[in-house]
Amino acid sequence: MSSDDIQPTDPRVERSRRLICEAALDELAEVGYGAVNIESIAKRAGVGKATIYRHWDGKLGLLASALESISTEVQVSAVGTVRDRTIELLTWLANHLSDGSSASACMPAMVSAAQYDDSVREFHHRFSAERRAILLNVLDDGKRAGEISAEADTQMLAEMLVGPLFYRRLMTSESFPAADVDKIVDAAFASVRTA
Amino acid sequence: MSSDDIQPTDPRVERSRRLICEAALDELAEVGYGAVNIESIAKRAGVGKATIYRHWDGKLGLLASALESISTEVQVSAVGTVRDRTIELLTWLANHLSDGSSASACMPAMVSAAQYDDSVREFHHRFSAERRAILLNVLDDGKRAGEISAEADTQMLAEMLVGPLFYRRLMTSESFPAADVDKIVDAAFASVRTA
Repeated sequence: MSSDDIQPTDPRVERSRRLICEAALDELAEVGYGAVNIESIAKRAGVGKATIYRHWDGKLGLLASALESISTEVQVSAVGTVRDRTIELLTWLANHLSDGSSASACMPAMVSAAQYDDSVREFHHRFSAERRAILLNVLDDGKRAGEISAEADTQMLAEMLVGPLFYRRLMTSESFPAADVDKIVDAAFASVRTA
Repeated sequence: MSSDDIQPTDPRVERSRRLICEAALDELAEVGYGAVNIESIAKRAGVGKATIYRHWDGKLGLLASALESISTEVQVSAVGTVRDRTIELLTWLANHLSDGSSASACMPAMVSAAQYDDSVREFHHRFSAERRAILLNVLDDGKRAGEISAEADTQMLAEMLVGPLFYRRLMTSESFPAADVDKIVDAAFASVRTA
């Protein structure tokens, strides 16, 4: 069977893509955006460069896929109170931003590359907005359910909720403990809760 | 008069230091931490490398001085309500983090360098903590004055106040508008105000 016969849903292709994405994030975390290249990722993943170029058109495309593959792991219940669902989502984020994860290790590199490269900036801001939208949906559900005041600025509320977690990760030596997420949620909700 | 006769308080020395610090921040903002070097800063400032080494022992020491020189511009009234003083401080921060300032342009470079260099990390986190302490003092004054609940976690409150501003700067395409600072302050204070 030639490689042309392999379909995108082939488990071997999926496994290869996953290994390449993991290698890409590890490289990004280790050396920063400027120093990452397809060759070093291929070497780390144990594949040829041609295999990578079969799936992606270049470095940013590959890193974007890799970051998006982590992001799909976000879990939030479809039902529940706005408080419980927000805590669930922020707990995921707090763990995601903790020092051990590769997504956390990649974040400073993406923040800096966004300053110097227009394409990275466009991706970084769009990616960040897409993930914030998950929280905004939860908050807007709470608004529709009457749990949050109809006048509440959910965009600002979302930034008050995630801001402290990102601030800790990017500006301080300690990541935000998942166990303290409920305190942030209750404090941020204090001005908008209806009961 | 030889250069040895020039005292640290000599206006010419002060002016030279200021020009070198400005050049250092411009270089950092433009090329990122890894690519900055004493030679490029000296060239931009129009001085010899020896002049820089007379004042600083290397790149990080110079950049630290330069960043600290901006930080000394923080203005906050010694008297006033905790709400007014917090708004004053956050308005300064919002302007400081707006896209036009060189401190804002340098921030992504420092965030990223902190991930890869132990000395930069130590400086970045200490510098960030020192600036956060200014806000913490204001909040603790409010606590002593009984304007903020005695049980309030002022550390968490400080992070809720500055978090959204840093989040906007580092993760989104738009900086936080100084005109909206009062909304963040009122929302963050909702759970801790006493009256």
